[in-house]
Amino acid sequence: MRVWHKEFTFTTGGRREIVDITREVLKAVRESGIKNGIVVVQIPHATASLVLNEAESGLEQDILNQLDEIVPVRGGYLHDRIDDNAHAHIKAAIIGSSRVLPVADGEVVRGTWQNFLVIEEDGPRTRRCVVTVMGE
Amino acid sequence: MRVWHKEFTFTTGGRREIVDITREVLKAVRESGIKNGIVVVQIPHATASLVLNEAESGLEQDILNQLDEIVPVRGGYLHDRIDDNAHAHIKAAIIGSSRVLPVADGEVVRGTWQNFLVIEEDGPRTRRCVVTVMGE
Amino acid sequence: MRVWHKEFTFTTGGRREIVDITREVLKAVRESGIKNGIVVVQIPHATASLVLNEAESGLEQDILNQLDEIVPVRGGYLHDRIDDNAHAHIKAAIIGSSRVLPVADGEVVRGTWQNFLVIEEDGPRTRRCVVTVMGE
Repeated sequence: MRVWHKEFTFTTGGRREIVDITREVLKAVRESGIKNGIVVVQIPHATASLVLNEAESGLEQDILNQLDEIVPVRGGYLHDRIDDNAHAHIKAAIIGSSRVLPVADGEVVRGTWQNFLVIEEDGPRTRRCVVTVMGE
Repeated sequence: MRVWHKEFTFTTGGRREIVDITREVLKAVRESGIKNGIVVVQIPHATASLVLNEAESGLEQDILNQLDEIVPVRGGYLHDRIDDNAHAHIKAAIIGSSRVLPVADGEVVRGTWQNFLVIEEDGPRTRRCVVTVMGE
Repeated sequence: MRVWHKEFTFTTGGRREIVDITREVLKAVRESGIKNGIVVVQIPHATASLVLNEAESGLEQDILNQLDEIVPVRGGYLHDRIDDNAHAHIKAAIIGSSRVLPVADGEVVRGTWQNFLVIEEDGPRTRRCVVTVMGE
């Protein structure tokens, strides 16, 4: 039984956008050499989120749009007196920054349309991602 | 330290409904023989979600209704030009498809009212569930 | 490879409030002696949630306020005929009760502004938290 960590960084180009990091995550899992266990994918940030869903450009725009319906960018938030990104914090708190999936026979157990998508709500920034694989 | 996977399938009968899979999840954990560790329960799908909550029929209807307030079935979504289920994708992205809980002394560490509930938003379908138990 | 569990309790003082349990979680991870692996933090409750975000009092109020916009306290819920807390259940179902993070070189891998915050929506109560650390 082993634990294996890998960190990579990526940049987001817009204020709000979705970045597909699936390729980097799957590469990390392969590099670990671990065949059975779990993978934890964590974005150590409080204004970006990690989700699993389809990397279709229309849907990505729908997700960003609907999140703005749920948590408007301008909402008279108290935190905006300190920093102008309360909406990004609230979205990230609700959605979460990490996802956990099984690894079986060397493959991440995910659906056909479950790509690892980062929802940037406070960009552009350099963001980090930590992939931890644990197993045998 | 061991890793143990089990997959089962189940069918959803309506367009949108909640299915309680607690019995199958707990059975899988018992079968693993693992007494201390963690369990990852993952639905490898992008239009259904997994939550932990009370399996009370009124509440289940409330959850479905309120999710429709948050992400309306008809929302003029771009993805609906390709496939008629954008709302289901958005809900699943936000809520997530996996939950992780401790296993201690052979029991899943959960609250009295924390049943494993699948929120189907794009049924009826055959759905898969993968239970991974890791520990000793 | 080891598994280590610790449980602690805390009390919430208001009907709805945010409680920062970061100090207790980090203490538990240190006590485990595990340097590389993962930590699962689980609140075994169906009317409170666990999030990772900034412990700034204005933002905490913003989170509570915005959650009430998304899932109003009074919503004509069916479950309120049985128990007067449907909104708390719905919020907890969506947000989730557990978070999973890597542990690397003895530290929980989290962002500067990722504190462990419990969102109480049905207090005041005594609440439990289980911290499970697995690794080496």
